[in-house]
Amino acid sequence: MKVDGAPTRSIWVEADGETVTTIDQTLLPHCFAKITLASVADATRAIASMQVRGAPLIGATAAYGICLAVRADPSDAALDRAAAMLLASRPTAINLKWSIDRMTAALRPLPIAERLCAAYDGAARICAQDIATNQAIGRHGLDLIARAARARPGAPVNVLTHCNAGWLATVDWGTATAPIYMAHEKGIPIHVWVDETRPRNQGAALTAWELAQHGVSHTVIADNTGGHLMQHGMVDLVIVGCDRVSARGDVANKIGTYLKALAARDNDIGFYVALPSPTIDFAISDGIAQIPIEQRDGREQATMTGRTADGRIETVRVVPEGSAVANYAFDVTPARLVTALITERGVIAATRAALAAAFPERAGSP
Amino acid sequence: MKVDGAPTRSIWVEADGETVTTIDQTLLPHCFAKITLASVADATRAIASMQVRGAPLIGATAAYGICLAVRADPSDAALDRAAAMLLASRPTAINLKWSIDRMTAALRPLPIAERLCAAYDGAARICAQDIATNQAIGRHGLDLIARAARARPGAPVNVLTHCNAGWLATVDWGTATAPIYMAHEKGIPIHVWVDETRPRNQGAALTAWELAQHGVSHTVIADNTGGHLMQHGMVDLVIVGCDRVSARGDVANKIGTYLKALAARDNDIGFYVALPSPTIDFAISDGIAQIPIEQRDGREQATMTGRTADGRIETVRVVPEGSAVANYAFDVTPARLVTALITERGVIAATRAALAAAFPERAGSP
Repeated sequence: MKVDGAPTRSIWVEADGETVTTIDQTLLPHCFAKITLASVADATRAIASMQVRGAPLIGATAAYGICLAVRADPSDAALDRAAAMLLASRPTAINLKWSIDRMTAALRPLPIAERLCAAYDGAARICAQDIATNQAIGRHGLDLIARAARARPGAPVNVLTHCNAGWLATVDWGTATAPIYMAHEKGIPIHVWVDETRPRNQGAALTAWELAQHGVSHTVIADNTGGHLMQHGMVDLVIVGCDRVSARGDVANKIGTYLKALAARDNDIGFYVALPSPTIDFAISDGIAQIPIEQRDGREQATMTGRTADGRIETVRVVPEGSAVANYAFDVTPARLVTALITERGVIAATRAALAAAFPERAGSP
Repeated sequence: MKVDGAPTRSIWVEADGETVTTIDQTLLPHCFAKITLASVADATRAIASMQVRGAPLIGATAAYGICLAVRADPSDAALDRAAAMLLASRPTAINLKWSIDRMTAALRPLPIAERLCAAYDGAARICAQDIATNQAIGRHGLDLIARAARARPGAPVNVLTHCNAGWLATVDWGTATAPIYMAHEKGIPIHVWVDETRPRNQGAALTAWELAQHGVSHTVIADNTGGHLMQHGMVDLVIVGCDRVSARGDVANKIGTYLKALAARDNDIGFYVALPSPTIDFAISDGIAQIPIEQRDGREQATMTGRTADGRIETVRVVPEGSAVANYAFDVTPARLVTALITERGVIAATRAALAAAFPERAGSP
């Protein structure tokens, strides 16, 4: 999507055909800084330091990390070293392993001389596939927004979102944001309520920045606010992303998502979850009992990092030194609260039957 | 309650019998600084700058403001000037007007020579009445905690609270915290989940500080977290304070309270609201439609103020400069989600009939 008026992806190959550039997301929204990835070590560092984050973007960065490794040394031994290094950068990221496995499986059978070209082709295909998936999610979600717009002609459609399931987390378009960007492109008046998303503030820092750069009307709110807005008719639909969906439709997403789903249900507002289908884990049924919830460093909750009035980046602590802090990163919204899932194959009910019918080739596997 | 091991109130008269001391709450939790109030102007400034906050404490501070005015000049004209100055310090605070009216009505009929002594007596009575009310709330709420403790012998009772309805907001004990402090005094094992309470962080800054100073086990969490904890059996009951209760039991309290009430209901957890009965507004029935919700300066939401690692107090901004920000200060929890109200007259249902039966002398008035 657009940054400073220019169409921009979250990762791209420079004119030399080999150097890779991405965005240092740890500096957003205060500074739009590009990072040059010239080696697999650079790619690994960008993932490990969370300069790049979001499952699809991590996968794309790892794919280009393999390219950069092959550029330096196309041997099997170098490929193995690169794969191991990248895999260790964020141990729990599913897309990371998927992307590395796909790249190495494609390259290993090839003669050394053909590997470099094939690697960049493979990474480009991974990126193109992500964009196509998000565009499909966008088209299906657009129907929901267009329907809300028809219900109240002339009034902007108010969408509430949580965390960042935006283009910064993918290669382009994002998942939860794809329908929003498509509605904006179509000229449908739209306004987005952006949850701050404590403790890491991905809503205030990333989603708000994305929407501001692309020119989409939005307002940042405390995570506490969505219920009040819904009670007063100020939200037409909720669209969030997700980290994992169980076979029966339970949704693991950023902590606080469950509270918004409860408020949406209490006020008869549609609660939609946008996702690429690999996010569905058909091996798990009861999301609340079976999806482990990561606990992160309490310092994320005890502090906030931002810019002072005179432009310095500082981290400040509010919690007293003597107080314990807990930092649960995700929660699980039970399927009964999910109006529907927006996937690349359409808008489908959050039920075991609907998921199995939409993805028969995966539902049968353990 | 205790600060640095010593019993402390939020406002008190020094040994000279006239000088008033309070706590600069804007510096908490980083610095426990006392403020000397030597004049009605000092008291007015402390209220206006929110160095003192919380309806009961504002009322007590205004009462002592009248005392300090009388000390300087006991004339009717001076009394009128003091009342007007104090009343303008926080225009929407109900307790402020109530306290000033009660003080001036008691003093005006008296001879000039008797006014100083009567003023300090009157302010002390306002403080004593607040403490007695909170202790009664504490005793009634203690029964609920004791019942939870009996249900799971040996395990700590986990209470979730939102914002600061603690002793800092009153003269002592607090409202939502009174049952917690009483359980702690009785040796009932108790642990408090403290919502950070964005945007002003009263939970992380004030409630956590109070509990830490008094030695009550607690953990600060993001406002997003309560639903996850409730899903996993980690909350036994919720106790919050409130700003206004309608005649049918709808509860206006700090923004985000409604979301916790929804989560409590979804997980069959008791949701209790502690309040002194003057908080009940029998003139209002439908809290959602009739209670106006204050919108505050968006800068509170766009920023956070805290202490850097090297001890400086800084304010940092996370939201991009180009993004709009909204800051709704309160929301309304419908009575149907409130398990019961904890008042100085007992634990009563959040219904019109129960409220009228408990407070017959007020329910009949318009």
